[in-house]
Amino acid sequence: MSSNLTTDRPTFVTHLQCSITGERYEADTLHGLSRAGRPLLVRYDLDAVKATLSREVLAARPTDMWRWRELLPVRGTENIVSLGEIETPLIPIPKSGGGNVLVKDEGRLPTGSFKARGLVMAVAMAKELGVTRIAMPTNGNAGAALAAYCSRVGIETIVFCPEDTPEINVREIAMQGARVWRVNGLIDDCGAIVGKGAAEGRWFDFSTLKEPYRIEGKKTMGLELAAQGGWRLPDAIFYPTGGGTGLIGMWKAFDELEKLGWIGPERPRMYAVQASGCAPIVRAFEAGEEHAERWEDAHTVAAGIRVPRAVGDFLILRAVRESGGKALGVGDPAILKAVEECAKQDGLLLCPEGGATLAAYREALKTGEVDEDERVVLFNCATGLKYPMPAAPQTLDRHGAIDFDAL
Amino acid sequence: MSSNLTTDRPTFVTHLQCSITGERYEADTLHGLSRAGRPLLVRYDLDAVKATLSREVLAARPTDMWRWRELLPVRGTENIVSLGEIETPLIPIPKSGGGNVLVKDEGRLPTGSFKARGLVMAVAMAKELGVTRIAMPTNGNAGAALAAYCSRVGIETIVFCPEDTPEINVREIAMQGARVWRVNGLIDDCGAIVGKGAAEGRWFDFSTLKEPYRIEGKKTMGLELAAQGGWRLPDAIFYPTGGGTGLIGMWKAFDELEKLGWIGPERPRMYAVQASGCAPIVRAFEAGEEHAERWEDAHTVAAGIRVPRAVGDFLILRAVRESGGKALGVGDPAILKAVEECAKQDGLLLCPEGGATLAAYREALKTGEVDEDERVVLFNCATGLKYPMPAAPQTLDRHGAIDFDAL
Ligand SMILES: Cc1ncc(COP(=O)(O)O)c(C=O)c1O
Ligand SMILES: Cc1ncc(COP(=O)(O)O)c(C=O)c1O
Repeated sequence: MSSNLTTDRPTFVTHLQCSITGERYEADTLHGLSRAGRPLLVRYDLDAVKATLSREVLAARPTDMWRWRELLPVRGTENIVSLGEIETPLIPIPKSGGGNVLVKDEGRLPTGSFKARGLVMAVAMAKELGVTRIAMPTNGNAGAALAAYCSRVGIETIVFCPEDTPEINVREIAMQGARVWRVNGLIDDCGAIVGKGAAEGRWFDFSTLKEPYRIEGKKTMGLELAAQGGWRLPDAIFYPTGGGTGLIGMWKAFDELEKLGWIGPERPRMYAVQASGCAPIVRAFEAGEEHAERWEDAHTVAAGIRVPRAVGDFLILRAVRESGGKALGVGDPAILKAVEECAKQDGLLLCPEGGATLAAYREALKTGEVDEDERVVLFNCATGLKYPMPAAPQTLDRHGAIDFDAL
Repeated sequence: MSSNLTTDRPTFVTHLQCSITGERYEADTLHGLSRAGRPLLVRYDLDAVKATLSREVLAARPTDMWRWRELLPVRGTENIVSLGEIETPLIPIPKSGGGNVLVKDEGRLPTGSFKARGLVMAVAMAKELGVTRIAMPTNGNAGAALAAYCSRVGIETIVFCPEDTPEINVREIAMQGARVWRVNGLIDDCGAIVGKGAAEGRWFDFSTLKEPYRIEGKKTMGLELAAQGGWRLPDAIFYPTGGGTGLIGMWKAFDELEKLGWIGPERPRMYAVQASGCAPIVRAFEAGEEHAERWEDAHTVAAGIRVPRAVGDFLILRAVRESGGKALGVGDPAILKAVEECAKQDGLLLCPEGGATLAAYREALKTGEVDEDERVVLFNCATGLKYPMPAAPQTLDRHGAIDFDAL
C-alpha cells in the first residue's frame, strides 16, 4: 500500500471562494453551491506550500494521486479513501493519431474511469465532514465511482441515471453497493430529483460541481501531466466535455503550479470536445457568449458527454478562451470511426468520449488549427470495455475438416 | 511516455534451458517447446546484472514493468512494444477479506488483464525474432492482449476460443485487429487447431508456455511484489491457476532476486487456486503426483482458470510444494459470493478468478491453513467489468409523484 495514504502531511486550505462573485466561504464546513448558485473553488496558502514542498520531494513519493496531498483538501490522513488511484499512462498512437499525440488513459483508474479522481476526493471530504447519505445524477461512470468509494467508507448512496444508460454501468453501480434507479429523462432530469431530495434534507447533493471537492480531485490530471512532462506542459489538450470538471480542474491546477514556481506562464490550448448531437458549449463558444443555454433533444453515442446544461459553463468557456483553444463538435460517425481505427491500428480501445477527442484532433490537423509537430494530449476518460462493440465472431467446427487457407 | 521504453540498456540473457532435462538452447533464435516437449526457461548472467544494477537505480526509474529491463529478454530498445504497463496497485479489502490481505489489481493493465504482462513480452520478442503471423488458443483475456500488441507492431494474429467465451472478450479481440473464431470445445481443443497449423508452418504457436517469453513477462508480478513490499515478500500468495504461467513466473523471479542478493531465502507460501469444477492441479497435488491428468467435463464461472490440462503442470506443482503452499479448490457459489461481498463491502469489483482467490483465502483462514495476521496477497487478474453482473436496476417515472421515503 502506498505510503502516501498512511503518512500524515500538512494541509494548506485557507477557504472556499464563489467562482462568480469571489465571495469567501469557510473551509471545514459542508457546502454545496455558493449563495449566487455557482460552484465554489478551494483556495490554498500556496506560499506556504512552496515553503514546504519541492518537486524533488514529490518525485521521491509513490506516483499515485495522493502524492499531491499538500495541494488537496483532505486534512486527516484517516479520512483518505483509496482503491489505488495510480498515475495514468501516456500512450502514443502513431498510426491512428500521428507522431506527437499521446493518449492519457484514464480507464486504468478504479471503476474504470476518471470519475474516480473526483469522487475519491469528494467522498473523502464527505467522510471528513460527517456526511452519511449521498445522492447523485449520473451518465454511469460517476455513479460507479461514487458507489465504490462510499461502500468502502460506509456512506449510503442513491443514484439516478437516464433510462438508456448502458446496462453494464447500472449493474456496476448496484454491484458496488448503491441503490440505483433509471429515470425517463436525461442527466439534468435526474439532477432535478436529486435537488428536490436534497432540499428536503434527505441526502447531500453530489451533482457535478455542486459540491466543491470533485474539481480538486480532477485537478490532479493537470498536476500529473505537468510532472509526466518534466514540468513542461503539452501544446494542446483535447478534453471530452460534459460537466467540464476536468477541464476546469486542470486549468486551476496550472495556475496553482505557476504560483508555486514549478511551471511558467505558458499554457496548453484547451480544446473542449463535444458531440455535435449535444454541443451547448460549442454553440456558446461560437456565439461569443459567457453562458451556455440548455441543448434540447440531446443525443450521442458518447453518453458521458451527453450533458445538455453545465452549471460550470462559464468556467469552461473562460478557460478555453484564455488558453487560446476552442470548443469543437464532432459527429457520432467520426467518433465511432476514430474508436475503431485506434483499436485496430494501435491496439488501444478508447471509450467513445476518448474517440471524440481523437476525431476532433484529426479534424483540427486538417483545418490547420493544430500542427502535426505540436505535442498534444487526448483524454481517454474511461475503459473502452464499458461500451458496446460490434459483433464479429465466426465459428469453427473442430470435428469437421478445417480449411486452414481460409482462416 | 516512460523513459524505460526509450533508453538503451544492457541485456543479460545467456541461453534458454529445458525445464525438465536442463538441456541448453541458443538465445536469439526462435523456439517453441524443448525437444522433450516441455517449456523453455530463459537464463541470465545474474552476476553481471548484479554488477550493473542496484535497487537504488531501479527505484529512481518510472515504475512501469519495463523498468526491469536488465531482467527481461528484449535486446533492442526499438523492439519494445507498450500500451502503458503500469505497476499495479495493492488494495486492502478490510471488510470482505480482513486486515492483512491485499489485492493486487491486475485489471489495470492494458486490455484489462494480467495477460498483458506475458503477451507484451512475447510479442516484443516475436518482433525481435522476425515472426509475422501468430495463432493462439485463449479463454479470452490472452487473446485480447495478443491482438492489441500485435496490431501495434503489425503482426498478423489468428485467435481461437471456446464457443462459450463471453461475447465481450470475443468482440474485444476482433475490435483490436485479430481474426477470431469460436470453436466447439475447450481451450485445449482450440490448442490442437493452433498446433496443427503451426506444424504446417502456417503460423507461430503462442499457446501458454509453448513459447519461452510470456513467463518472463509474468515474472514481473513477482519482481513488483518484492519492490512494493520494500524487498520483503508476503507470507502467502493466492494465485488463480489455469496454465500457471504467473505462478511459475513469480517463483522464477524470486530465485533471480535471491541470486542478486536483493531478497533472502524466505519465500511466500504459494497457493494455486482452482475452481472445483476444473481442478487438475488440486487433484494431482493431493495425490502426490508430479504431473496432472486432463480434467474431463470442465466447468466453472471462472473461465480464465478453466484449463483442463496444463503443459507446465510439474512446474506449478513443484513451486507449490517447495514453497510449503497448497493447491486449493473452491466452488462456484463461494466464488460468486466472494465477488459480491468484495464489491458491496469494499467497493472493489473482482473478476471471478480473483473472487476464487478470496474464497480460497477465507476458507484457508477457517481451516487454520493461514493465520489472520499473516501478510497475504491475492491476485485479481482481470477487471471485473469483463464479466456478467446480476441485473438490478429499478425504474422511476419523473413525471409521476416520487415517493422519496421509498427510495
Ligand atoms: C467517459 C466520460 N468522458 C467524459 C465525461 C465528461 O466529463 P466532465 O463532466 O468532466 O466534462 C464523462 C462524464 O460522465 C465520462 O463518463
Ligand atoms: C482472469 C484470469 N485469471 C487467471 C487466469 C489463469 O492464468 P494462468 O494461465 O497464468 O494460470 C487467466 C487465464 O486465462 C485469466 O484470464
